Parts: sequence; structure tokens; C-alpha cells
Amino acid sequence: MDEFTLIDRYFKHECHSANVSIGIGDDCALVNTPDGYELAFSIDTLIPGVHFFAQGDPALIGQRAMRVALSDLAAMGAEPLCCTLALVIPRADELWLKSFSSGLLEAARCFQCDLVGGDTVKGPLTISVQVHGFVPKGQALTRDGAGVGDMVCVTGSLGDGAAALRVLKGDINVSSAAFAYFTDCYYLPEPRIDIGKKIRGLASAAIDISDGLLADLGHICRASGVGATLDLSNLPISSPFAGDVSNEERVSWALSGGDDYQLCFTVPENRSRSLFQLINARKCDITVIGRIVGEQGIHCQKSGESLTSSNVGYRHFD
Amino acid sequence: MDEFTLIDRYFKHECHSANVSIGIGDDCALVNTPDGYELAFSIDTLIPGVHFFAQGDPALIGQRAMRVALSDLAAMGAEPLCCTLALVIPRADELWLKSFSSGLLEAARCFQCDLVGGDTVKGPLTISVQVHGFVPKGQALTRDGAGVGDMVCVTGSLGDGAAALRVLKGDINVSSAAFAYFTDCYYLPEPRIDIGKKIRGLASAAIDISDGLLADLGHICRASGVGATLDLSNLPISSPFAGDVSNEERVSWALSGGDDYQLCFTVPENRSRSLFQLINARKCDITVIGRIVGEQGIHCQKSGESLTSSNVGYRHFD
Repeated sequence: MDEFTLIDRYFKHECHSANVSIGIGDDCALVNTPDGYELAFSIDTLIPGVHFFAQGDPALIGQRAMRVALSDLAAMGAEPLCCTLALVIPRADELWLKSFSSGLLEAARCFQCDLVGGDTVKGPLTISVQVHGFVPKGQALTRDGAGVGDMVCVTGSLGDGAAALRVLKGDINVSSAAFAYFTDCYYLPEPRIDIGKKIRGLASAAIDISDGLLADLGHICRASGVGATLDLSNLPISSPFAGDVSNEERVSWALSGGDDYQLCFTVPENRSRSLFQLINARKCDITVIGRIVGEQGIHCQKSGESLTSSNVGYRHFD
Repeated sequence: MDEFTLIDRYFKHECHSANVSIGIGDDCALVNTPDGYELAFSIDTLIPGVHFFAQGDPALIGQRAMRVALSDLAAMGAEPLCCTLALVIPRADELWLKSFSSGLLEAARCFQCDLVGGDTVKGPLTISVQVHGFVPKGQALTRDGAGVGDMVCVTGSLGDGAAALRVLKGDINVSSAAFAYFTDCYYLPEPRIDIGKKIRGLASAAIDISDGLLADLGHICRASGVGATLDLSNLPISSPFAGDVSNEERVSWALSGGDDYQLCFTVPENRSRSLFQLINARKCDITVIGRIVGEQGIHCQKSGESLTSSNVGYRHFD
């Protein structure tokens, strides 16, 4: 099976978006940007042993690759349009490819993000997905707009990504129900496209939490030239299992574990009413966890008591 | 050095295009598509030992990665806008990174294709470059428009890519002047952006020659539901060195060697005047090498004598 047959068999499909003029099969993909919109795009690379388990279900690996990439569109307030895939595989293993492509395309369908092109070459397994989305001109959520006094918010709950990694590695034993929950957390993270779009015009800065809250909020703070104070008693930590894991460890996972793919964003005080309207009326899972301050760095408090943390999230090449 | 320092140190730079709203440093890059234009994009992945020499000059590897990717924009008649880089490296080797990024960014500057984002992770060396370009709406050159009777044209000369690979591998001994010429052929291929733009509205179909003329013209033929007849006496073969290589072998390289990054395109007979005006007035290096025919497949003739070739260009996974 040559690369062309492989692409035809496993990746070529009908595109759904009217904005895609040309999908897979030509030298380039071709898309239209509707008037009044900008195009946002981001590429994410996944390596076995670092970003996924090499022996994992290929369909789930495909799902994870697409969803992790889409999370960056959510962080910009963008709506998915289309994606490309650069796939390096050691051999044309048809079973693996069939399963991987079905998972990837399933996630692409789920989030209306047509696969429109890519490259497939032979080599050590590497998966790069570039996602493209639309955002109304001037309304993209960036990292650099946080101001002193802004509320710091997060979506969903934090720490499940770190817990899931340990559960799947076998470091923590959990019930079969909890195992299923964490398998979903790891392989089917929910890019918060919905919330990203709703907080356009409301949030002053936003990022998705891939490296851990402290690391990613740190990016907002550095880009905006500010710091933040967090109240850890407000930190939304999910409790899908009780047991051997201490509360301290779970707080540490929530702060520095990474892989949560929730959004962290800041909202100016004078938009607090709109924020709480959003939370209450639309039942958005958003929690206010702190404030932006003038002093650099991120300071954690719990019930008024000051804490320090040297955990700064996962970094490559450290 | 963590990934953020690495990106800041070697890849972050001032963007030149007014159409780039956000470059490196946020969750997504953000670009504007001017009214009346579509966005074309393509991703290319390079693996050491397959697409470049692992021990090669990193600056030249960076140049090659960018130029090879840009060739797909040329094939669509698109003008470069910006690119992203997904880089997998085994370790943060500063000398390598400094050199690689300087070559990549030099090529990006040369073709006005700002690097606006990417991902850098640890793993076996893999370089993926996605290029983005503009093309006036409805004017992109595609593969599927060739019609019976169209002239088959190629730019530049063919076979240098295949010769260069053999020279750099040490399979062929050449003079130091020829060695320098072939080193440039291999590492600094010229994406034919200039010609791609000029043949908008003239060519009925186009592709860039990366896998070899027969393979790539074959893509045009299959997409268009036609065949082609080539007259090999017209094949533009460059002669930078005379010596041990037979004429048959050089024709074979021109037909099936690949890595030339010239354009192959078709022009309807009723536009032949415009084609020859373009060739003569602007001194474009374009050669007519055959005709599109109704019968499937590519038939080679030389001075009227029919030939067959089982070479179909390089394919992965064969």
C-alpha cells in the first residue's frame, strides 16, 4: 500500500463546511474566510511515551490528538473550521490506521473540523494536527489583556488530567467505574469551544490549561505584565474517586498536573455582572479562583494563609 | 532550556505581513484574508534519512524544509503568507537549533512567509512545515482541470534532484563546482512561486514535481480523467556535468527521480498564444513536453518511437 492508497482508504472523506473549497487530494487545501472573520490556527505534536501511550487504542489516540489541538481554538474564542494531519508511522499497519483514522475523523466530525489535508511519511510514530478556526475580527481572546483587579476564572474541574495519567499508568488503583471515567478524561478531553465563544467580549485574556494552571496562568501574567493571587479553597477539584490520594496531592495536580484542557481566563471587575449572568443563566461550569494583581508571580492562599509552590507544570527539555 | 526559552531564543521574530494579527506566542496564530482571496495551505513532513541527511548542515536542512513546503503553494498559484513549524528534536542542542532556525527563517524571509507559530517537543527528529498562502478566489490552480488536447508544460529542468541525491550520497563523483551546484539543488530548491502566479488563468491544471514527472503528471491525469503523451526529445534536462552518467539514466531521473520542485502544468490549445507570450516576453523557463490525450496512462515517445517506462517515481510504503 503506497501513501496515496493509504490516504484514499483511511483519510479521504466528504467535507462538510461550505467554507472549504478544496479538501484532501490537491497540492493545497483551499478555504474561504467569511467577511468579518479572522482565521486562527495552531499545531500540536504528539509523541508516544510523552503525549500518549504507544500501545493505546489507536481510535482513542486519534480522538485525543484532535481534541488536544482543538483546545487551542477554544482558548482563542474561535469556532473550528478544518484541520490538517502530518502523520509519521513506522509502517502501513492497516488495522492501526483504520482505527486511528476512525477516531480522528470521529472527533473532527464531532467538532465540525473537516480534515482537509496532510502528509503521511514513514518513520518513528509522530502525530501533528493543525486546527484552523474562525473568530470575528478583533474579538480573539489573547493572553496579553489581563488587568489588575480582573477576576481569574477556570472552567470545569482541575486535576483529572494528572490523575488520569497515573491511573492509566497503573500507579493508582481505582474502581472500574473510576477507571472508565479517567480513560475518558485522558483520551476524550473536551475542548471548551462552547465557553470560548461565550466569553468573547467578556474575558480580557484567556488560555487553555495544558501544562497546568500555574504554568498556563503564568503565561497570561507574563504576557500581560501582571501577577495573580489564587484562593485555593475555591479551586474546583473533581472527586470521582475517594481513597489513597491525599487532598494536598490533588491540589498539587490541579495546580501543576496539566492535561486538563479547561480554560483559564480573566474578567474585568466591571463585567462581573455579565460573567455571573453567563454562569447562572447558561449553567456554565465556571469558577472564580482569584484576582489579577500588580505584583509579578502567582501567589496562592488558602483561607487567608499564604502558600508557596515550586511546581510550575510540565515543561519539555527541563 | 525549556521549550518556551527555546522558542523565544531561536524562533520568535518580528512578523512582516500586515495580514498577520498574531504571530508566535499565543494559543493560536491569527491572520486576515484580504477580500477576494482564498487561503491555500499545505503541510510537509521531513524525516532524516528519507527527506534529508541527518548529519547535514542544519541551516541547509531548515532552508530545504521551508522551500519544499512552499513548492505546494507555487503549484496552486498562491502567494506565500505565513507558516507554522512542528519540530520534534531529540534534545535541545543549541548549536543545531541556532543553525536550523537561521536557515528556516532565512528561507521564510526570502519568500515572505512569516513563521507565526508551531510546536516543539522532544523525540526522534521530525520537521513538519505548514505553509499558508493567498490566491484570488476561483483562480487556484488545481489538478483536475486538464482537458484532451492541452499542452503539457514543465518549468526549469528535470533530473537535478535525483542527480543531487546521488552526488551527496557519494554514489557519483563530480568536480567541486558540480558538487556545489548539486548541493544547492538539494538544499535550496526554488519553489516556483513566480511562475505559479503567472500561469493563473492560463493553466488548466498544475502540480509541483516532488515525486517525479511521471508520478506527478499521473496525479493530474487521474484527477482529470485523462492521459498524456510525452515527447522525450523535448524533455529539459540540465547538463551541469558530463561524464559517467548515461543519457538513458538522466532521462530516467528526469522522468522518475523526483525532488525537482519544478511545476508541471497543462495549457489549453486556445491559450497557446498567451503561453508563448509569457515564455518570450518574461523569459520564463517553460518547456512544452507533450499533450493531454483521452486514453488513460502516460505514453512516452522519442522522435516518434514509442517507449514504455515502469518507473513511477518514489512512493512511501511500497
